[in-house]
Amino acid sequence: MAPILLNCLGNDHNEYIKQQVQVKNPHLDTMEEDILYHFSLGTKTHNLPEMFGDIKFVCVGGSANRMRAFAQFIHQELQLPGNSEEIRDICEGTDRYCMYKVGPVLSISHGMGVPSISIMLHELIKLLHHAHCRDVVLFRIGTSGGVGLAPGTVVISSKAVDHSFHPQFEQVVLGKVITRSTELDEGLANELLQYSTELQDLPTVIGNTMCTHDFYEGQGRLDGALCSFSPEEKLEYLRKAHEAGVRNIEMESTVFAAMCRVCGLKAAVICVTLLNRFEGDQITTPHDVLVEYQQRPQVLVSHFIKKRLGLII
Amino acid sequence: MAPILLNCLGNDHNEYIKQQVQVKNPHLDTMEEDILYHFSLGTKTHNLPEMFGDIKFVCVGGSANRMRAFAQFIHQELQLPGNSEEIRDICEGTDRYCMYKVGPVLSISHGMGVPSISIMLHELIKLLHHAHCRDVVLFRIGTSGGVGLAPGTVVISSKAVDHSFHPQFEQVVLGKVITRSTELDEGLANELLQYSTELQDLPTVIGNTMCTHDFYEGQGRLDGALCSFSPEEKLEYLRKAHEAGVRNIEMESTVFAAMCRVCGLKAAVICVTLLNRFEGDQITTPHDVLVEYQQRPQVLVSHFIKKRLGLII
Repeated sequence: MAPILLNCLGNDHNEYIKQQVQVKNPHLDTMEEDILYHFSLGTKTHNLPEMFGDIKFVCVGGSANRMRAFAQFIHQELQLPGNSEEIRDICEGTDRYCMYKVGPVLSISHGMGVPSISIMLHELIKLLHHAHCRDVVLFRIGTSGGVGLAPGTVVISSKAVDHSFHPQFEQVVLGKVITRSTELDEGLANELLQYSTELQDLPTVIGNTMCTHDFYEGQGRLDGALCSFSPEEKLEYLRKAHEAGVRNIEMESTVFAAMCRVCGLKAAVICVTLLNRFEGDQITTPHDVLVEYQQRPQVLVSHFIKKRLGLII
Repeated sequence: MAPILLNCLGNDHNEYIKQQVQVKNPHLDTMEEDILYHFSLGTKTHNLPEMFGDIKFVCVGGSANRMRAFAQFIHQELQLPGNSEEIRDICEGTDRYCMYKVGPVLSISHGMGVPSISIMLHELIKLLHHAHCRDVVLFRIGTSGGVGLAPGTVVISSKAVDHSFHPQFEQVVLGKVITRSTELDEGLANELLQYSTELQDLPTVIGNTMCTHDFYEGQGRLDGALCSFSPEEKLEYLRKAHEAGVRNIEMESTVFAAMCRVCGLKAAVICVTLLNRFEGDQITTPHDVLVEYQQRPQVLVSHFIKKRLGLII
């Protein structure tokens, strides 16, 4: 019986550890106070377990306005009491990010690009750790350029890839480059794809998402202030990306996938495509159509959350 | 006489070209319309020469609130008519960046990190080009971590360096890495240093500025969600940086220097240090002291602008 018992204990223990949000920093325990500077929050000035202990879903996206709109949307979807218009920015002491809490859902903006989301993720993961959160699922809901897809298509990322189409993120630590995996949770991606079929007007695919550090030269756009390549060279690069399974391009997914993976957080990247990059570079779609496109990842994530909470079957 | 004449013509021509804001993209001329998507501006929807043709100074910084405060401050300093409180965000159609125009001064926010400022710079340089601006000087005014300096010291960057202390920026173009120089204008830096001596409470040095792609692991902080190194290894890295001439660390200077250089724009990076990284990682200075520190680069740039405009001698 002993081995079986041990196995059971082992599994339970693993499961227990998995459920917790793990920081990977032995120094944090020795700090008297932890100031989450870019959130304008801290362990001495705020009761983080009381404020955030019940969080189960964290949704992040680039635009502050969009993440406020998402918080209001989820407030209505979950039929919570109170006026969704009066929702308060928890990070009102700073303009670096904005943060809204709606029941078990946290909605946070992260700005544009890997460095900007990386600062937010460090402080978010510490926040969830200090607040003793468990069983948290993270979603990045964003916009992207599509590669061979009709505008408005939602892409759930199977993995985030770099400019060479490799599923890795290069992180500099004290001047040395280390490489982290950017694989995302397969079960979560499949669950989201399944749910998309239950919703109307939500064309959705699973594919690789390329993450670049620049909107213009790095994504092969011909319309930046600098451009040294031809339209043919651009199309050749996009064709190679498509062959490697890339279906959309954005600017945050690699570090999001890498950090969530290291910290044992289940995570998904769900971005709508605003244009098909084989057809152009500029975003010329009318504003109201773009607004509707940007709601699609929100609708999908809201459906997921309602399913998980048992509000719909 | 012919060779001399040709030389003269050549020099004049060079000077003429230098004064203009140069885009480095042959495709731009062939575009019917250029939508500056992240500014919510465009060549067909806005009269850019009329709106921006008189711009001579562009100041950029990470925080939207700070760049609004700077616009209000410069409005008072230049003694312009109208209420500085009523200044309007030109990019109010988007929340990606904010932009204020005060006489010949443009104040723009760029968010955090190289990718975020890079998008802004592409669209800014195109904006200045479309508006036929000439003799434009760019300043990045920001905050930073000091390396061996008392908090509150202003650092004018001699050059921006990467995590290996090299004055270069690696840009990915269609999946290939190219390297650009990040040297900054020496004359401009010296002029700013000279002006700092004319002002009170403005301790200022010229030094190298290290630009990282991450606030925590990349800058050797011990207080992130992830940390795999010891306090000794951190200090060793900072010591090496100091030996290489690094006096402060921030997250945007390399791409700012590189793009301005390629486009023939005179540019300076002026950041105040909020802490001395040899002494700690967290920013624990009281809020009002931080606010005063953040005004220092603004005061120096305002002094420079007033000198250039002949408002003070």
